[in-house]
Amino acid sequence: MSERFGSVLLPELVLHSGKILKQARVAYSINGTPRSDGSNVVVVCHALTGSHHVAGESVSDLPEAWWDPLVRPGGVLDTDKLCVVCCNNLCSPYGSSAPTDIEPGTHRPWGMHFPLVDPRDIAHSQKMTLDALGIPRVAGVIGGSLGAMIALEWMSQFGATMDFGISIAAPLRLYPQAIALNGVQRRAITSDPQWLDGNYYPGRGPVDGLFNARMLAMITYRSEESFVRRHMRASHNIDEWGGRFDVESYLMHQGKLLTRRFDANCYLYLTKMMDLHDLAKGYADAEAALEPMRKKPFLAVGINSDILFPPWQVQEVVDAATDVGVRASYRELRSDIGHDAFLVETGQLAEIFKDFFDSIGFLEQRPASRRSRGERVSSVEKQTPVGFASE
Amino acid sequence: MSERFGSVLLPELVLHSGKILKQARVAYSINGTPRSDGSNVVVVCHALTGSHHVAGESVSDLPEAWWDPLVRPGGVLDTDKLCVVCCNNLCSPYGSSAPTDIEPGTHRPWGMHFPLVDPRDIAHSQKMTLDALGIPRVAGVIGGSLGAMIALEWMSQFGATMDFGISIAAPLRLYPQAIALNGVQRRAITSDPQWLDGNYYPGRGPVDGLFNARMLAMITYRSEESFVRRHMRASHNIDEWGGRFDVESYLMHQGKLLTRRFDANCYLYLTKMMDLHDLAKGYADAEAALEPMRKKPFLAVGINSDILFPPWQVQEVVDAATDVGVRASYRELRSDIGHDAFLVETGQLAEIFKDFFDSIGFLEQRPASRRSRGERVSSVEKQTPVGFASE
Repeated sequence: MSERFGSVLLPELVLHSGKILKQARVAYSINGTPRSDGSNVVVVCHALTGSHHVAGESVSDLPEAWWDPLVRPGGVLDTDKLCVVCCNNLCSPYGSSAPTDIEPGTHRPWGMHFPLVDPRDIAHSQKMTLDALGIPRVAGVIGGSLGAMIALEWMSQFGATMDFGISIAAPLRLYPQAIALNGVQRRAITSDPQWLDGNYYPGRGPVDGLFNARMLAMITYRSEESFVRRHMRASHNIDEWGGRFDVESYLMHQGKLLTRRFDANCYLYLTKMMDLHDLAKGYADAEAALEPMRKKPFLAVGINSDILFPPWQVQEVVDAATDVGVRASYRELRSDIGHDAFLVETGQLAEIFKDFFDSIGFLEQRPASRRSRGERVSSVEKQTPVGFASE
Repeated sequence: MSERFGSVLLPELVLHSGKILKQARVAYSINGTPRSDGSNVVVVCHALTGSHHVAGESVSDLPEAWWDPLVRPGGVLDTDKLCVVCCNNLCSPYGSSAPTDIEPGTHRPWGMHFPLVDPRDIAHSQKMTLDALGIPRVAGVIGGSLGAMIALEWMSQFGATMDFGISIAAPLRLYPQAIALNGVQRRAITSDPQWLDGNYYPGRGPVDGLFNARMLAMITYRSEESFVRRHMRASHNIDEWGGRFDVESYLMHQGKLLTRRFDANCYLYLTKMMDLHDLAKGYADAEAALEPMRKKPFLAVGINSDILFPPWQVQEVVDAATDVGVRASYRELRSDIGHDAFLVETGQLAEIFKDFFDSIGFLEQRPASRRSRGERVSSVEKQTPVGFASE
């Protein structure tokens, strides 16, 4: 069964800031068929400019599927057995509630009146979405980058009901350098005169600003090694102002692509969401936040060439988890791609995930191992599809 | 004798691009008294937004002296014995010819009509300036960052007449990541509507663009460690859009400071100058370019926390020099500051320079060692001040 899409309306989402988002819409995708007890359900969380379109063919108005090689029948996230659910993050322009929506009680888009949303809020919105879909619990959660921050919040907020968690290329909290890079990207947008304090709808909007923000972001998603391998020091007519190095042309191309598919205010909200990531927020420390995962398996994947969230930051997550008794392990994705390797090196990821799933006996068919997993035993053959809520 | 300032007019500077800059003005500073044979003259080369004001008290219209602890009587660059000359780079707004000047034959500033200038052109302009000052040769050249790129060009172009060279935190050529970061900074300026294709004189100019460019640059001049040490993840009112992390406030402060003292077109030219750095340009390879330094001592200093020009890039310079028979050595400045450590860690630099000068016997008073240095012997006691040319 191929990917299906839907959305739910959450009557009220209480945000970490104390603000309340009413009638919050969450768009989602489902690949595979969920068991009614959720024991085969895996939530995957998408990154900054991604969407809930995880696998399969092109879909109009959504970017290309980002984990197609992993989420498919026979894949490491085998949709013949598993059910993979992905929710579009709030503040994203791909169907969930966002600054591009009309603000209730007005006839104007929210713009900068939309409340700030942090990764914990996203985890809550996703849990409520699963509830609305009739999926009472999930087996595990997986995410990369911003998606991994959301996955860590899932573990912190709902780990007690989960079997495992996987985070890729994300820290316990943003360090100042990443905050700084996001801040510069936001300024590129907000200093574009077309931004109009966010009230540019309908209209061209701060296209140049978003373009410039994406150029910078792409530097941090790649690595020196990948630029060198692709000969990006090559140049044309470089002794004149019209000339350009290939790396500049590449970044401009990437900037252009994003402006065709993304909204600038959404970009502001989503980079701020990332800045607000701090697993320890409201807890004594990050260890306390990870307490619900005690004795449960957790895999953190670092990327050797990642300059945005380098391996030592991922290792810190493992250390904090280990300190509180989580069965945490670290694996490193070896690639010269940089941060975006979690979207590109799907072969390696498949191996890493397979090793992890094997080690924890996830979805094994052997009764012996299943029997030890309690809750699941009663419903192992029961695969009732849930009804799909639609707005 | 404290720092003295002047400028020379070079009738004609033939640039690497083939273009000719006529009546090129080069502003300079002199600390100490040059011997007429130049045997005690050290050229120091300043970085991107620096100036020729190297040492001493504040000077109106110039940024603060950038190597004051090093260049002084009794300092490692002892101005009681040495003569330190620093030329303001062409394209810089501090007195040398730049896009801010009136274009000859017009009544308008050059703006983007000014020719592109590369670090080799700068080395030539500085050599011609020394010639105009009556200093026929120099003992050595020292520079950091862009200044080190210029110093490397000195070694390549004039090494045969020099005794030593020192470069700090610079590569053989810019790698794509640094080019990319410069490209994004330039776009911040050129997409500011106040830029007006560079024809903003007189006027406010692209202040926001320059501000944003500097914010990004400062991230690359610092390091995660230095941000963390300074608690730059601290924040105020961060759950609202008005809130801010300290690292953002810091970068905005730095952005503001630069817009008060720098010109946006100059910034475009100087970042492009850096992009154009390629020691091998016009040679078979970088080794061939360094041939004039064969058998001469050369010190390359890397900075362990430098994310802009990391130590491996500096090590490459040493390797290329060694391959062609240069007496090259590598030292590492240990600091958590990042790239800007070459401006901050002057105590360590003094030690590193002292070790190097001791090892090569630079300015030693022992006749034995002097006698081996040929040219210098005849004029060791001769300390005729040269006349200072002024425009």
